[in-house]
Amino acid sequence: MEIVEVGPRDGLQNEDGLVPTRTKVELVQRAVAAGLRRIEATSFVHPGRVPQMADAEQVMAAVPRVDGVSYSGLVLNERGLDRALDAGVDEVNYVVVATETFSQRNQGAPVEEVLARWERVAARAHAAGVRPTATLAVAFGCPFEGEVRAEGVATLVDRIAAAGPVEISLADTIGVGVPSQVTERVGRLREDHPEIAARCHFHNTRNTGYANAVAAVEAGVSALDASIGGLGGCPFAPAATGNVATEDLTYLLTGLGVLHGLDQELLAEAGTWTGTWLGAQVPALLGRAGTFPAVSAVR
Amino acid sequence: MEIVEVGPRDGLQNEDGLVPTRTKVELVQRAVAAGLRRIEATSFVHPGRVPQMADAEQVMAAVPRVDGVSYSGLVLNERGLDRALDAGVDEVNYVVVATETFSQRNQGAPVEEVLARWERVAARAHAAGVRPTATLAVAFGCPFEGEVRAEGVATLVDRIAAAGPVEISLADTIGVGVPSQVTERVGRLREDHPEIAARCHFHNTRNTGYANAVAAVEAGVSALDASIGGLGGCPFAPAATGNVATEDLTYLLTGLGVLHGLDQELLAEAGTWTGTWLGAQVPALLGRAGTFPAVSAVR
Repeated sequence: MEIVEVGPRDGLQNEDGLVPTRTKVELVQRAVAAGLRRIEATSFVHPGRVPQMADAEQVMAAVPRVDGVSYSGLVLNERGLDRALDAGVDEVNYVVVATETFSQRNQGAPVEEVLARWERVAARAHAAGVRPTATLAVAFGCPFEGEVRAEGVATLVDRIAAAGPVEISLADTIGVGVPSQVTERVGRLREDHPEIAARCHFHNTRNTGYANAVAAVEAGVSALDASIGGLGGCPFAPAATGNVATEDLTYLLTGLGVLHGLDQELLAEAGTWTGTWLGAQVPALLGRAGTFPAVSAVR
Repeated sequence: MEIVEVGPRDGLQNEDGLVPTRTKVELVQRAVAAGLRRIEATSFVHPGRVPQMADAEQVMAAVPRVDGVSYSGLVLNERGLDRALDAGVDEVNYVVVATETFSQRNQGAPVEEVLARWERVAARAHAAGVRPTATLAVAFGCPFEGEVRAEGVATLVDRIAAAGPVEISLADTIGVGVPSQVTERVGRLREDHPEIAARCHFHNTRNTGYANAVAAVEAGVSALDASIGGLGGCPFAPAATGNVATEDLTYLLTGLGVLHGLDQELLAEAGTWTGTWLGAQVPALLGRAGTFPAVSAVR
């Protein structure tokens, strides 16, 4: 199972205080040291909209270039793609939103326009030798429109797939999904598009994130997003906790006998370190509770 | 699915400050108002060992006696049973510990002696018209002895079952278990003793508690323990969070289409109220994040 570390991007983008570039780079360095091989390092969006990501180029210039480590940058349009390509990313992650209201607020454009942009972004990324991945946001529920139906998700996935991404991620952006929905939606994605890798992105806003991760593994994803410390909120649910934590997800996968190649102790340390410069206790629990020495691979 | 509210007992027993009896009773009242029908109200243990539970008789005298609401008291020996019967409990919950070291520390007796006591407790409870249930503690791992093997659990379950309890609960006392272990251990319990109801007790110490709850539901438990607010620590892991939270578990089960009869909004309110008198943010997330209006029963 590939874990994609999204702490430097999704984990930090809603932090009020600007995090110094060197701290972001250290977060990436710690992730690499703990064994992470896919890292969403930053977001190439308008600095006026997301000031925390204004140093995207500086972050990418400073991250350790290690064999086998792939850096991804989030992009929302061709301007972002230009910047990501110039900065030397290995992957671009493009976001499509499953509902019109959220699409207008997040992307400033209707879903149709976002899909049209995606075709061009995907084609240009392929041409540049950079892997295009796509994330379908609010794929399990929308803070404005409520329930998001599986049928609608499948239709949007078909449209996204038509542009030929190497991977499609279903994101529970506001942390409302439950395992049965994951089983259904990921199952459909795998069935309809077996040639495209499946990934999921869960927030633990209502304590369903780790159960959802288990369901996603069982449904056949090859990658899961997570953030060190469990950082990351949602601008529309300020009190909510963030992404599933890389260290806690790793503990869970280890217990399940799912290979991941990560070092739990280093991750737990990195999570605790993150709390020190954020000045807050991180949502991750492994750093507090400690790893358990004798969990065996029972699956 | 029956949810057993254990907040008044397991949720509070490790709190440093003594919680007033009237606050405990209000916690029970709020649980009943939210639809809970099984409540572990207190523990009849030596007040010198667990001062927080010294008011067991007063709590039982004050809880609302509502048709269909069953109160349980935790007991460790016949002296506790005497007190529980005098106090008018509907169920007694007896604890057997899966490892010798934890048994000595928690019960002050070896496992064999604890099992011998259990036979007498179960027989006397049945004779008194009170339902005996048994909990096997550290059934997924022990802070002193590490891994606890499924085979050992099954052997102890056989011994416990021989005394004729109405229900056996497998407890992950220190929150180290993972879903595959739950599937295996609960599956074995159901297979070996189909005439005895199965229950599970999970702590969310390492963020595996809710995923474990899903696995337990799928493996055929008829009841799950939970505590309002997610209260409850473990004396051997002080920084760890507590039981799975009643409100968050309810959110999850609702999404899965599992009937439970509980009112999410009242539970979330009760969890937030609990945080006010504890002077701390409770581990439960639903009170912070809010319920999501449009989760449908998709299973």
